[in-house]
Amino acid sequence: MAFTQPFGLYSAATGLGLLVTVLTLSRVTRDYAHDKKASGIADLIRRGAMAFLHKEYSILVVVIAAAAALIWFVSGKIESYAYVAGAISSMFAGFVGMHAATKANVLTTMVAKDEGERPALLTALMGGSVMGFTVATLALLGLGIITFLYQDHISFGRILTCYAIGASSIALFARVGGGIYTKAADVGADLVGKVEQGIPEDDPRNPAVIADNVGDCVGDTAGMGADIFESFVAAVTATMVLALETYSADSVLVSLPLVLSAIGIFASAAGLLSVFVIPVKSEKLLHFAPNIAIIGFIVASYFYMQSAQIATNLFGSVFLGAITGIVIGLITDHYTNGQPVQELAEASQSGAATNLIYGLSLGFGSIVAAIWIIAAVVFASYNYFGGLYGVSLAAVSMLATVGIAMSVDAYGPIADNAGGIAEMAGFGPEVRKITDKLDTLGNMTAALGKGFAIGSAALSALAMFAAYCMASGLSALNLIDPTVITGMFIGATMPFLLSAMTMKAVGRAAWKMVLEVRRQFKEIPGLLEGKAEPDYEKCVGISTEAALYEMLLPGILTIAMPIIIRYGFGLQGKLALGGFLAGATLVGVPLALMMANAGGAWDNAKKFIEAGNVGGKGSPAHKAAVVGDTVGDPFKDTSGPSLNILIKLMSVLSLLLATI
Amino acid sequence: MAFTQPFGLYSAATGLGLLVTVLTLSRVTRDYAHDKKASGIADLIRRGAMAFLHKEYSILVVVIAAAAALIWFVSGKIESYAYVAGAISSMFAGFVGMHAATKANVLTTMVAKDEGERPALLTALMGGSVMGFTVATLALLGLGIITFLYQDHISFGRILTCYAIGASSIALFARVGGGIYTKAADVGADLVGKVEQGIPEDDPRNPAVIADNVGDCVGDTAGMGADIFESFVAAVTATMVLALETYSADSVLVSLPLVLSAIGIFASAAGLLSVFVIPVKSEKLLHFAPNIAIIGFIVASYFYMQSAQIATNLFGSVFLGAITGIVIGLITDHYTNGQPVQELAEASQSGAATNLIYGLSLGFGSIVAAIWIIAAVVFASYNYFGGLYGVSLAAVSMLATVGIAMSVDAYGPIADNAGGIAEMAGFGPEVRKITDKLDTLGNMTAALGKGFAIGSAALSALAMFAAYCMASGLSALNLIDPTVITGMFIGATMPFLLSAMTMKAVGRAAWKMVLEVRRQFKEIPGLLEGKAEPDYEKCVGISTEAALYEMLLPGILTIAMPIIIRYGFGLQGKLALGGFLAGATLVGVPLALMMANAGGAWDNAKKFIEAGNVGGKGSPAHKAAVVGDTVGDPFKDTSGPSLNILIKLMSVLSLLLATI
Repeated sequence: MAFTQPFGLYSAATGLGLLVTVLTLSRVTRDYAHDKKASGIADLIRRGAMAFLHKEYSILVVVIAAAAALIWFVSGKIESYAYVAGAISSMFAGFVGMHAATKANVLTTMVAKDEGERPALLTALMGGSVMGFTVATLALLGLGIITFLYQDHISFGRILTCYAIGASSIALFARVGGGIYTKAADVGADLVGKVEQGIPEDDPRNPAVIADNVGDCVGDTAGMGADIFESFVAAVTATMVLALETYSADSVLVSLPLVLSAIGIFASAAGLLSVFVIPVKSEKLLHFAPNIAIIGFIVASYFYMQSAQIATNLFGSVFLGAITGIVIGLITDHYTNGQPVQELAEASQSGAATNLIYGLSLGFGSIVAAIWIIAAVVFASYNYFGGLYGVSLAAVSMLATVGIAMSVDAYGPIADNAGGIAEMAGFGPEVRKITDKLDTLGNMTAALGKGFAIGSAALSALAMFAAYCMASGLSALNLIDPTVITGMFIGATMPFLLSAMTMKAVGRAAWKMVLEVRRQFKEIPGLLEGKAEPDYEKCVGISTEAALYEMLLPGILTIAMPIIIRYGFGLQGKLALGGFLAGATLVGVPLALMMANAGGAWDNAKKFIEAGNVGGKGSPAHKAAVVGDTVGDPFKDTSGPSLNILIKLMSVLSLLLATI
Repeated sequence: MAFTQPFGLYSAATGLGLLVTVLTLSRVTRDYAHDKKASGIADLIRRGAMAFLHKEYSILVVVIAAAAALIWFVSGKIESYAYVAGAISSMFAGFVGMHAATKANVLTTMVAKDEGERPALLTALMGGSVMGFTVATLALLGLGIITFLYQDHISFGRILTCYAIGASSIALFARVGGGIYTKAADVGADLVGKVEQGIPEDDPRNPAVIADNVGDCVGDTAGMGADIFESFVAAVTATMVLALETYSADSVLVSLPLVLSAIGIFASAAGLLSVFVIPVKSEKLLHFAPNIAIIGFIVASYFYMQSAQIATNLFGSVFLGAITGIVIGLITDHYTNGQPVQELAEASQSGAATNLIYGLSLGFGSIVAAIWIIAAVVFASYNYFGGLYGVSLAAVSMLATVGIAMSVDAYGPIADNAGGIAEMAGFGPEVRKITDKLDTLGNMTAALGKGFAIGSAALSALAMFAAYCMASGLSALNLIDPTVITGMFIGATMPFLLSAMTMKAVGRAAWKMVLEVRRQFKEIPGLLEGKAEPDYEKCVGISTEAALYEMLLPGILTIAMPIIIRYGFGLQGKLALGGFLAGATLVGVPLALMMANAGGAWDNAKKFIEAGNVGGKGSPAHKAAVVGDTVGDPFKDTSGPSLNILIKLMSVLSLLLATI
C-alpha cells in the first residue's frame, strides 16, 4: 500500500489521552482527609454501582460470547475478535469512568467543605475527565489497532463494523438498562420518601436513597459514556467504510476520520488544561473548556488538511460538524434553561394539567430548529463539500472533541452525588450551598450533553445509513417503491414502540421499589425517627434486577427487527431495510430530542420554582411542577436516550447485514 | 370519448343521498312537545354555534375570494370556479350538519324523556345522518358535475385538484379553529367551574357551559365533517388523477372511484335503514349499521367490477381498503375502551404523574398495529393488486361508506349535547340515565371516528403523494439524495411544530375563558346561588374570537411551507417537496394516532373511575385521572385532528404545485 496511515500521530494522541486519564484518575483517587460518615455513604454508593456493573457484566459475558460465536460463524474469526474488542473497550471505559465517578463524588464534597467552590468544581470536572478521555482514547486505540493490523485485509470494513457492533451491544445494556435503573430508583425514592413520608430529597432515612445515587452513576455516567462511545465509533467506522467503498483503500480520506479523532484528543486536552491556567469565572468554566477545544480542533484540522492537500471543500464539512455541536447545545440550553422554562413555571400556577400541556408543547416545538440545522448540515455537506462522505465527516468532526464534551457531561452526576453525600453526611449549609451550585451547573451540562448525544446519534446514524446504502450496492432507494414505503412505515413505529416499552418498564420497576420502601418504613422500627438503618442493599438489588430484566424485550426487538426486515422481504430485503432505517431515524431523532428537552425543561421549571419564584416550594405551582418533573424523568433519562441506542444499533447491524 | 361514465348511476346515488338527508333532516326538525327550559338552552347552543359559523364564514369569504383570484391568475378560470365549488360544498355540508345537530340534540333529550332509550338513540343517529349523507352526497355531486362538464378538458385533473383544495381550505378553518374553540371552552369551563367553584359538569350556573356545548357542535360535528369531506374528496381526486396519468382518459379506471362512491351511498343508506328494520340491541346498533354497509359495499363492488370486466386483482385493493376501516376501528376501540384503559385507571391510584406516564406510553404503543396494517395494505395493494392506483383505490374504498361512518360519528356530539341539556333543564335521574348511556356510546364512536379519520387521512395522503409523484414526472424519489433527505427532515418537523402551536393556542384561549368565567362569578351577584343568569354570549364570543385568531399562524404555515420548499430549492424543488411530504406524513400519521388514542384512553379511564371503579368519583385516582383527561383534551380534539388537516392540505397543495 502506497499510502501510510499516520500511526505516529495516532500513537501520540493515544498516549496523551492515556496520560490525561491516569493523571486525573490519580488526582481524584488520592488520599484526602475524609469525613467518616461521608466516606461511609460514598462506599455504599460505590458498592451499589459496582454491584450493578458486576451483575450487568456477568450477563454481558454470556451475550458477548454468543454474539461472538455467531459472528465467527456467519462472518469470520477476525470479525469476531473485533466484536469482542469493541465490547470490552466499552465495558472497560464504563468501569474506569464509574470507578472515578464514585471516588470523585465524595472527594468533591470534602474539597467543597475544606477548600471552597472552585477547587470542588475542578475536582468534579477531573472526575468526569476520566470517563471523557477514556472514551476518546479507547476508540482511537481500538480503531487504530484494527487499521494497523488489517488495513490491507479484504474484510477491513467489516472488521471495523464488528468493532462498532461490539460497542453498540454494550451501549444497549448500559443505556437502556441504566436508564431504567436510575429512574426506577429516583421515582421510587420520591414517591414514598417525598410524597408519602414527607422527608426531603437525599434523606438518609429513605431506603432507596443509595439506589437513587447509584442510579446517577449507572445511568448518567456509565450509560452516557457507552452511548457516546458508540456514536463516536459508529461515525468513524461509517466514514472509513464509505471512503473504502468510494475511493481506493490507500486514499488519505480513509485515514482522515482517525486523524480528526487524534486531533480531537489534543484539542480536548488543551481545553481541559485551559481551565486550570486561564482565569475563567466558575459559572463559565464548563462552557469554556469545550469551546476552547472546538476552536483548537477547527484550526488544527484546517492546517492538517492543507498540508495533506485534501480538497478545501471537505474542510467545510469538518467546520460545520464541529460548530453544529455548539449550536445544538445553545438551542438545548434555550429550551431547557431559558425563557421557555420560566413560562413553563408560570403556566404551572394553573395546575398540573397546564404544566403538562405546556411542557409537552415546549418539547414538540423545541425540536424544530435543531432538526433544521441537522438538515442544513446534511444538505451543505453533501452538495457543497463532499457527498455522502462529507455528511459522514461532519459526524466525525462533531464527535472528535468527545474527550472534553464527555468530561463536562460526566461532571453532572458527580456534582449531583456530591450534593447528596453532603446532605446525608449532615454537612452545614455553607457546604450544601456550594454543592447545590455545582449541581445546578451540572443540570445545565446534563441538558447540553443530551442534546449533544442525540445530535451526534443523528449524524452517526445518517453516516451509517449512507455506508449501508453503499455497502448494499444501492445507488438509489426509491420512496415511491412500495417495499421502501412499507419499510419506512414499520421503521417509523419502532421509536414509538420502544418508548412505550421503556416508559412502562420504568413504571413497573418504580412500583417494585415503592413496595419495598413502604415495607421497610413499616417493618423496621425507628426508621422514620432516624434511630434505625434502612436496608439500602435491598433497594439497590431491586433496581439492578428490574433494570436488567426490563431491558431484555426492547433489546431483543432492536436486534431482531433489522434481521426480520432484511430476510422477511426476500430479494427486496435490502430496499425494505433501507426504508426501515430511514423511517426509524426520521421519527426517532425528533422524538428523542422532544423527550430530552421536555424532560429537561420540566426539571428546571421545578428547580426555578424551588428557588423561590411563582410561589416557591410547597406552592400549588410547585406541586404541579413536581408532577411534570416526574413525567419528564423517564422521558429524559430512559426513553429518550434509549432511542439514541435504537437508531444507532439498528444502523450498525444493518451495515453488517449488508456486507454478508 | 369512447367510454361514457355511468352518470345515471351517479345521479341515482346522489338522488338517494339527498333523499336520506331530507328525510332525516325533516324528522329531527319536526315539531315535538317541547319543554320550555330545554328549548331555551338548545336555542342558546344553536345561536352560539351559528354565531361561530357566521364569524368563521365571514372570514372565509375573504380567504376564498383571495385564493380563487390567485388560482385564476396562476392556473385558470375553470380551476378557480372548481376551487370555489369545493369550498362552498364543504361550508354547506358544515352548515346543514350543524343545523341538524343543534335541532337533534334537544329532540333527543325530549324523546329520551317521553319515549325511552331506543327512540332517543335513533333520533340522535338521524341527526348525525344529516351530516353523514350531506358529506357523501355533496362530494359525489361536486366531483360528478366536474367530470360531466370537463372530462374531455385538457386540465381535467387540475380542475379536480382545485375542487379538493377548496374542500381542504375549509377543513383547515373548521378543524383547527373548531378544535381550538371546543377545547378552550371545555378546559375553561372545567378549570373554574369544576375545580375552583366545585359545581358539576353542565351546570347552568357556569358561564362557559353554553360555549362548551357549542364546542361539541363546532369541533366534533362541523370540524369532523369538513375533515372527512376533505379526505373523501382527496382520495377520489388522487385516484382519478393517477388513472388519468397512468391510463388513457377514457379508461373505466378513471370512473371507478366515482362508481365506488356511488355504491358507497347505496350501501350507507342500506346500513342506516337496517337499524330501523332489523332488531339489534341498542348497544350494538352503532357498530351494526356501518358493518352492514361495508359488507354491502364489498359485495356490490365485486359484482360491478365483474360486470365491468375490471381485473379481479383490483378488487383486492377495494376489499382491503373497506375492511381496513373496521380493523383500525377495532384497534382504536381496544386501546381507548378495552383492557389498557382499565390498567390506566388502576395506574392512576399512584397519582397524576403515573397516570400521565402510563397514558403517554399507552398512546405510543397504540400506533404500532394500526400503522403496520396501513403499511401492509400499501404493500399488498401495490404489489399484488394495482400499483400506485391500487393504493389509491384502497383509500377510496375505505372512505366510500363515509355516509354511515360519518353519521355514527356525528351521533356522538348530539348525544353529548342531549345529556347537557337534560342536566341544565333539570330533568330527573331516569332521563339522565338514558342520556348518560347514549353519551357513553357516543364516546366510543368518537374514538372510532378519530381512528377512521386518521386512517383515511393517511391513505388519502399516500394517494395524493402518489399522484404528486406522477404529476411531477418523478419516476423515483431517491432517499440517498441529500435534497430528498433535507426535505424529509424539514417535513418531519412540521407535525411537531403544528402540535406545539395548537396545544399552546388551546392553553392561551382557555386562559382567556378562565379569566372571563372568574370575572362573572365575582361580578354577577347571586350567580353561584343560581339566582342570576350568567352572560353566556360573552363566553361564546371569547371562544369564537380566540379560535379564529389562534388558527391563523398554523394555517399560514401549513399553506406556505410547501410553496417555500417547492421554490426555495430551485430546480430541485420537486424532489425536496416530495421528501417533505413523505417526512410530514411519516411523522404526522403516528403522532396524530398517538394523540387521539392517548386522549381517548385518558377520557375513558376517568369515566371508568367515575363509574365507581378503583375508588370512584372524588378519590385520589379520580383526581389523577382528571389531570390526564385535561391533558388528553387538546391531544385528541385539537392537535391530533389538526395533523390530519396538515398532512392532507400540504399534499393536495403540492399536487397543484406539481401541475403548474
